Amino acid sequence: MSTSLEFFFDFTSPYSYLASTQVERLAERTGARLVWRPFLLGGVFKATGNVPPLSVPAKGQYMLKDLQDWAREYGLPPLRLPPTFPIPSVKANRLALVALEQGRGPALVHALYRAIFQEGRSAENPDVLGAVAAEVGLVPEEALARIERPEVKDALRRNTDEAVARGAFGAPSFFIGEDLYFGNDRLLLVERALVRARGA
Amino acid sequence: MSTSLEFFFDFTSPYSYLASTQVERLAERTGARLVWRPFLLGGVFKATGNVPPLSVPAKGQYMLKDLQDWAREYGLPPLRLPPTFPIPSVKANRLALVALEQGRGPALVHALYRAIFQEGRSAENPDVLGAVAAEVGLVPEEALARIERPEVKDALRRNTDEAVARGAFGAPSFFIGEDLYFGNDRLLLVERALVRARGA
Repeated sequence: MSTSLEFFFDFTSPYSYLASTQVERLAERTGARLVWRPFLLGGVFKATGNVPPLSVPAKGQYMLKDLQDWAREYGLPPLRLPPTFPIPSVKANRLALVALEQGRGPALVHALYRAIFQEGRSAENPDVLGAVAAEVGLVPEEALARIERPEVKDALRRNTDEAVARGAFGAPSFFIGEDLYFGNDRLLLVERALVRARGA
Repeated sequence: MSTSLEFFFDFTSPYSYLASTQVERLAERTGARLVWRPFLLGGVFKATGNVPPLSVPAKGQYMLKDLQDWAREYGLPPLRLPPTFPIPSVKANRLALVALEQGRGPALVHALYRAIFQEGRSAENPDVLGAVAAEVGLVPEEALARIERPEVKDALRRNTDEAVARGAFGAPSFFIGEDLYFGNDRLLLVERALVRARGA
């Protein structure tokens, strides 16, 4: 039985974007089953008392450089970052849930992250969400209607509450069983743990 | 001319300890000149408005696990952590400056980090500082007297102020020229940058 790697991500989080470009190959290399879990970082911050890096100016300034360092490391184009953080992302995260229901999860995640962080498009603009939904084979009108359904709203809240209950305090968060790994920069340790799990 | 890699560290910082076990080999692999720069993390936090990870409970709990993950990754024994943070470290950091003056810097740094994070000894106990000083070939009475000298106190403050002026907000911090890298987990990017600098 293959080990599961749960990937909690939010479209507001540029570090989640960076990780999203790496997780599939990592899962492939290690034989892990990747589970995509959109959640709401704002809810995580509220529940844990954590704050975004940009609330400390020197940290925020470094983050802008650090993101570009990682983009270069991963062979990605320079990130386009919105003039203000946080990026509103509730609808985008719900759209990922809808795409996952319809077997288009990973495609939607990649296309939407690309729209936001490579093309500088707004994550909350319905036209952008609709265009990206169409791009990955969803029916835009249906998908945009579905993200307003109570069961989809609840599913996002449940993912968020569950991540917090299991110890998450930021994004991206990874779980291998109950073993938490926080941050794009922990993918190395995630990979080591998955290799050990396979050998065990 | 070889590129300099400046390593700002504080004995209060377990992530600086982890990095200290890796930096020399990294410098060797990349042909960089390693510059050891003790500074005072408390002063950095005060100047930048940053806060230690333990101020967010979920983050603090994760940190304790994460440190052990890195210790395992680096082939180090499990870290021994003091019951309360922050570990007072002003005298320890000044002792590193004194050891650097006398050509015993790296030896002192390794021996003192080992005493703190492998043996669980107090970083501010003069007996511990004296024993570690003796272990690396310093005269303990002289070294312990010298850490109270105004020029040594000033040197630690200067390192701290300089790191903040250059953008640092935590420990460990690395500089390649004016390019800042924050955290043990950025050693990969530090290495890439040094390799590029050599090839340039």
